[in-house]
Amino acid sequence: MKRFIFLLCMAAGPLWAGTDDMPTAATGDLGLVVERATGSLLVIDRSDRAAIGRVEGLGDLSHASLTYSPDEHFAYVFGRDGGLSKVDMLTRQVVARTVQAGNSIGGAISDDGKLVAVSNYEPGGVKVFDADTLDLVADIPADGKTIGLVDVPGRRFAWTVWDTGEVFLGDFSGLTPQVAMIGNAGKNPFDAVLTDDAHTYLVGLFGEKGVTAFDLWDAHPTPVKFLTDYGKDGEDMPVYKMPHLQGWAFTEGQYALPAVGRHELLWVNRDSLQEVATTQVHGQPVFVIAQPASPFVWVNFATPLNDVVQVVDSRSHEVVATLTPGKAILHMEFAPRGAEVWISSRDDNKVLIYDTRTREKVGEIAAQSPSGIFFTARAHRTGL
Amino acid sequence: MKRFIFLLCMAAGPLWAGTDDMPTAATGDLGLVVERATGSLLVIDRSDRAAIGRVEGLGDLSHASLTYSPDEHFAYVFGRDGGLSKVDMLTRQVVARTVQAGNSIGGAISDDGKLVAVSNYEPGGVKVFDADTLDLVADIPADGKTIGLVDVPGRRFAWTVWDTGEVFLGDFSGLTPQVAMIGNAGKNPFDAVLTDDAHTYLVGLFGEKGVTAFDLWDAHPTPVKFLTDYGKDGEDMPVYKMPHLQGWAFTEGQYALPAVGRHELLWVNRDSLQEVATTQVHGQPVFVIAQPASPFVWVNFATPLNDVVQVVDSRSHEVVATLTPGKAILHMEFAPRGAEVWISSRDDNKVLIYDTRTREKVGEIAAQSPSGIFFTARAHRTGL
Repeated sequence: MKRFIFLLCMAAGPLWAGTDDMPTAATGDLGLVVERATGSLLVIDRSDRAAIGRVEGLGDLSHASLTYSPDEHFAYVFGRDGGLSKVDMLTRQVVARTVQAGNSIGGAISDDGKLVAVSNYEPGGVKVFDADTLDLVADIPADGKTIGLVDVPGRRFAWTVWDTGEVFLGDFSGLTPQVAMIGNAGKNPFDAVLTDDAHTYLVGLFGEKGVTAFDLWDAHPTPVKFLTDYGKDGEDMPVYKMPHLQGWAFTEGQYALPAVGRHELLWVNRDSLQEVATTQVHGQPVFVIAQPASPFVWVNFATPLNDVVQVVDSRSHEVVATLTPGKAILHMEFAPRGAEVWISSRDDNKVLIYDTRTREKVGEIAAQSPSGIFFTARAHRTGL
Repeated sequence: MKRFIFLLCMAAGPLWAGTDDMPTAATGDLGLVVERATGSLLVIDRSDRAAIGRVEGLGDLSHASLTYSPDEHFAYVFGRDGGLSKVDMLTRQVVARTVQAGNSIGGAISDDGKLVAVSNYEPGGVKVFDADTLDLVADIPADGKTIGLVDVPGRRFAWTVWDTGEVFLGDFSGLTPQVAMIGNAGKNPFDAVLTDDAHTYLVGLFGEKGVTAFDLWDAHPTPVKFLTDYGKDGEDMPVYKMPHLQGWAFTEGQYALPAVGRHELLWVNRDSLQEVATTQVHGQPVFVIAQPASPFVWVNFATPLNDVVQVVDSRSHEVVATLTPGKAILHMEFAPRGAEVWISSRDDNKVLIYDTRTREKVGEIAAQSPSGIFFTARAHRTGL
């Protein structure tokens, strides 16, 4: 502690010039905004609705994601260029960095915060690192690109291979990793997601229609195919952007899915896996995100219709609000108890803050081509 | 920030003598343990599995609870003696304190972190305080003791009056509080709880059988009575301790409730409100708490059978493990992603740490008559 305070005292001067409103050292309401064009991260304070710093030198962040340590002290940033960077939220410095592959698409941190896993395209496979040091602790090859890597309770991770359709569950709780192929999801899975209760691993397919579910509470999960009409419709229907399955909302006993290539949300009953409704929306949905502690999901859209956000009621399946917050809306992040949503408007170079009850703008922050917004509260959620 | 660092540097010496392992200033993995006999709080570090400090001078904590600010910087402690104390998790000092009533039983913080509400027995009613200063901002009288106070999204709170059965929803988002009576729950409600999605406010009754549900997503909620066989059975069945409804677990589309006076858990379908199963357990359940991201609930019991904890599978409704962690098990708190459970053993003067996957003890911490355990991750959850 004394060492830490000493370092902090040394660093206090030059931390972030030009801002009077410096944060306290508590980290529960901080966050990072990915500035994709400049390879930097904007540090934000949710309570103050303010930017409080910037971290630079993170490489190619054109398709980046990140996750947090359980103490909300460090962020692990997964860059498109295969860079894995560890960022200190208090000193706002990159404290460790490794370029661990040629092209990576995301990662996750184990439930106990000890291991960080990265899923890679080139070469394929999963690499697992010590969360403290970023030392490599396991290198799991694959017969292709890995997608949909998620943390599973018990120091485990699940992932899927695009080329083969195989789904793997890796257990890193013992001295030697135990990796098992648990089934084949289908042809060319493009993304996968874990439900918030870590119960169901859902895999979206690109090479054929349908979604495949695995019950991870089962000791021997088997693939269950559903929504067999789900997917790309053919050459006549251009897909401007594959939707993010991390955007699947789980609300009112349903999954809300972005249709691929169509201007629709699909609603699936969580127990029966039957489609129960569709909602016509403004464009091709990209993220469909549940507003916490509410019946609502918020939706953004693929280019060229990406200046709009819609709010849909999960009970009636009706659009209840259409907002035009700004140009090129790329991402939305809710305050963990749902009071606000922070929206990145890339082409306005702004993050916009909306009150979710009034659906009115209550603030904005300048940012350089912002994309993903990540609050530290994610540290406490499974499957991110 | 500089002022804060200066204070921290000044305080670094005497903060907590005798511990080498001082915490960093990140607050995501901290917590507090109520030491009921001494009116103190033990500050704990979840990652280090260690006590890192003690806060004293909190009055009567014999039946205390607490909640956290959104930045996980401050705890608001509700003491039995009507004391409301604000504790700084970084300096480990009481930074504000008011004895605001003669006898209080709990409170909550608004979704935006601006207001703290306390429910009182003597005199009855609800007092609302500015979270920064603890200045009184609203004083809502009631015709009796208030119970089951919870935060509701949109800077609102719900509560219930023991003497009249009336349920109130207070909206504090505007200049003047708007308080509405939304219905009558029944005779002598003893506790109430909000589901994690803020959808349903569930009120347990003491003066008659049954549980009453209010749909808080509805603009005009109405009371719906269910489980009409639920409650105290009569003189022949002594109730050693009324169960805590905050312990109601919500898992697998069900509520798991502690039966009153009986050695049973009750399982209720969340949609139909029909009882779907009962589980025979070791004693009279006190807390029934869902292990995050798992199918399991953990149960502790009333005296004299309070040396046992049982684990029940929400799919089969069967007891899958019976543990005897120590003497007088009063509370259990899970790591937010479920990897560990921390268990207070009052009469062993210990907090015991169990791995939830192996269900084996992985650590313990000395504490003085520990009761409630509260991790800072609660800052990010609705209805606590």
